[in-house]
Amino acid sequence: MTTQVSKQIQLASRPKGWPSEENFETVSVDLPDLSEGEVRVQNLYISVDPYMRGRMSAAKSYVAPFEVGETMTGGAVGKVVESRSDDLSEGALVLHQFGWRDVAQAPAGQFNEVPEIPGVAPSLYLGMLGLTGLTAYVGLTRVAKMQEDDVVFVSGAAGAVGSAVGQIAQLLGASKVIGSAGSKEKTDVLVQKYGYDVALNYKDAPIREQLPKAAPNGIDVYFDNVGGDHLEAALDVLNRYGRAALCGAISQYNNTEPDPGPDNMANFVKQSLGFKGFIVSDYMEYAGEFQERMSAWIREGKIRYDETVVDGLDNATDAFISMMQGANTGKMVVRIQD
Amino acid sequence: MTTQVSKQIQLASRPKGWPSEENFETVSVDLPDLSEGEVRVQNLYISVDPYMRGRMSAAKSYVAPFEVGETMTGGAVGKVVESRSDDLSEGALVLHQFGWRDVAQAPAGQFNEVPEIPGVAPSLYLGMLGLTGLTAYVGLTRVAKMQEDDVVFVSGAAGAVGSAVGQIAQLLGASKVIGSAGSKEKTDVLVQKYGYDVALNYKDAPIREQLPKAAPNGIDVYFDNVGGDHLEAALDVLNRYGRAALCGAISQYNNTEPDPGPDNMANFVKQSLGFKGFIVSDYMEYAGEFQERMSAWIREGKIRYDETVVDGLDNATDAFISMMQGANTGKMVVRIQD
Repeated sequence: MTTQVSKQIQLASRPKGWPSEENFETVSVDLPDLSEGEVRVQNLYISVDPYMRGRMSAAKSYVAPFEVGETMTGGAVGKVVESRSDDLSEGALVLHQFGWRDVAQAPAGQFNEVPEIPGVAPSLYLGMLGLTGLTAYVGLTRVAKMQEDDVVFVSGAAGAVGSAVGQIAQLLGASKVIGSAGSKEKTDVLVQKYGYDVALNYKDAPIREQLPKAAPNGIDVYFDNVGGDHLEAALDVLNRYGRAALCGAISQYNNTEPDPGPDNMANFVKQSLGFKGFIVSDYMEYAGEFQERMSAWIREGKIRYDETVVDGLDNATDAFISMMQGANTGKMVVRIQD
Repeated sequence: MTTQVSKQIQLASRPKGWPSEENFETVSVDLPDLSEGEVRVQNLYISVDPYMRGRMSAAKSYVAPFEVGETMTGGAVGKVVESRSDDLSEGALVLHQFGWRDVAQAPAGQFNEVPEIPGVAPSLYLGMLGLTGLTAYVGLTRVAKMQEDDVVFVSGAAGAVGSAVGQIAQLLGASKVIGSAGSKEKTDVLVQKYGYDVALNYKDAPIREQLPKAAPNGIDVYFDNVGGDHLEAALDVLNRYGRAALCGAISQYNNTEPDPGPDNMANFVKQSLGFKGFIVSDYMEYAGEFQERMSAWIREGKIRYDETVVDGLDNATDAFISMMQGANTGKMVVRIQD
């Protein structure tokens, strides 16, 4: 068996503020022969996600920081190209966490086989059918306990999670779904493609001025992807017993100084509000229910999704940085091989 | 039947910032003869509470604002002195909402008869055995879902609710209970009387500096009575899955400008925190369970409580204003008649 080389991206240094190319280094690693029980996987697509920025910092968070000088990890979908395990055959499509590299090698138990769906790119397992869609689904149904006829507001609505939240909220019977994004192009997509009833461009005017006009009867659920001024605006208009699912604070990930907080925290008591931060890995028990409902919605043509596909591992860090800056519509993935 | 006069305190104007005497007016009202089904009640004690400040503003809140030019309402305990109802006899002790006056008159259904407890002043029904104790109990058990061995932090700990929270948390098996208050006298009382393990005087140094030293392993539950800098300090040290019950924001009630918010809202996501504002009236279903447990704790000598008693309806507004400024230890009541 010949030695195989894996090209991998490592964290070279911790970013201060926005990450840049110099924080990363690409290395070539010689893979040893497979041990008994191991498989070798050629990645097809790898995922770049906002939460990875958190792992690049040393500070404590919900997942351990990446180590400087080590290969980063993240969601990936690939094909088994060599197997010494009875559990996975050559050719199997697998979902796993050995992203940021072209070839992965590990015990078979660390890869999950998933079915190939005709007409659907396997990258969907990194997005709408994977953790992205599940995040949207459990955030709405379990964290914010959305009810039929609720008015729902979603920040970062054109992002991977946000574009799923809007559509799922409509499918679950929301009376009105309002989204915000940072360009005319994105707000157009929100309304024309993702079923948002109203889309606000937060660059047109402060979101705190726009939201009360879009929600004259207030909102019942806030799905927060950005934090900061959006969270403050939501606090202004949340109705009594309103709930927020806090999923990310992308506006703050790259701050070197703490952001000022919302000046209307007193509304928590006045309106009996409930806010809950969450991470999808605490809600994996709902993955089965989700995949069943989401597969059906996709089959019935009820779910639209965008992918921003960047080609080549060499462009992965650039893809990650531009995703953090909002260049993507929908899920951002890097294609390693078709 | 002779006409009876009721002395009542009305809201003369809405306070801007701190309330002052000129916002109130004392009037004498001639009460008509009792109609069939009505009772007349001589109040013994009336309650002054922080939430009443909210009702003096016109802004929407969890209870309707007081009307300018009308008599205010609030908790009171009194004795039936005249009855035209079969449901309440003369001499019955009743708990009701016709405070801010010496004599109340209304249909019997608006008064709740409560048992006289030997050796216990009826004012306890306005405090530890009433909504104050219930607020502490449901805030800990139902809103913050406190578990055995939790580390609990309580702001405004020397107040009526706060002094109950600390003791109930200990009785429910907290591993450590930390309280904050604004004077050496109060922090001494917290430790020596109310069973707090650690008491912080927030005037000694910023609470954000003191709390991490008092809670080196973080906190699991935060019971918030004050908002502002205390809430920010709690957000710093809440452990993963930490919960906060937000009961009041006394630090902000009299602000004419909005307070800056906590600069660490991103911890909601990082630590999967849950915050919930609440008002006790949404948790009345637990009143029976509470009164049973609290009566037992009181009988067993396990609960200590302070009252600050001010004499006479003429001093009620002064009592209210000084309570808002922190002059009380424990529940503040106004004695109308013994």
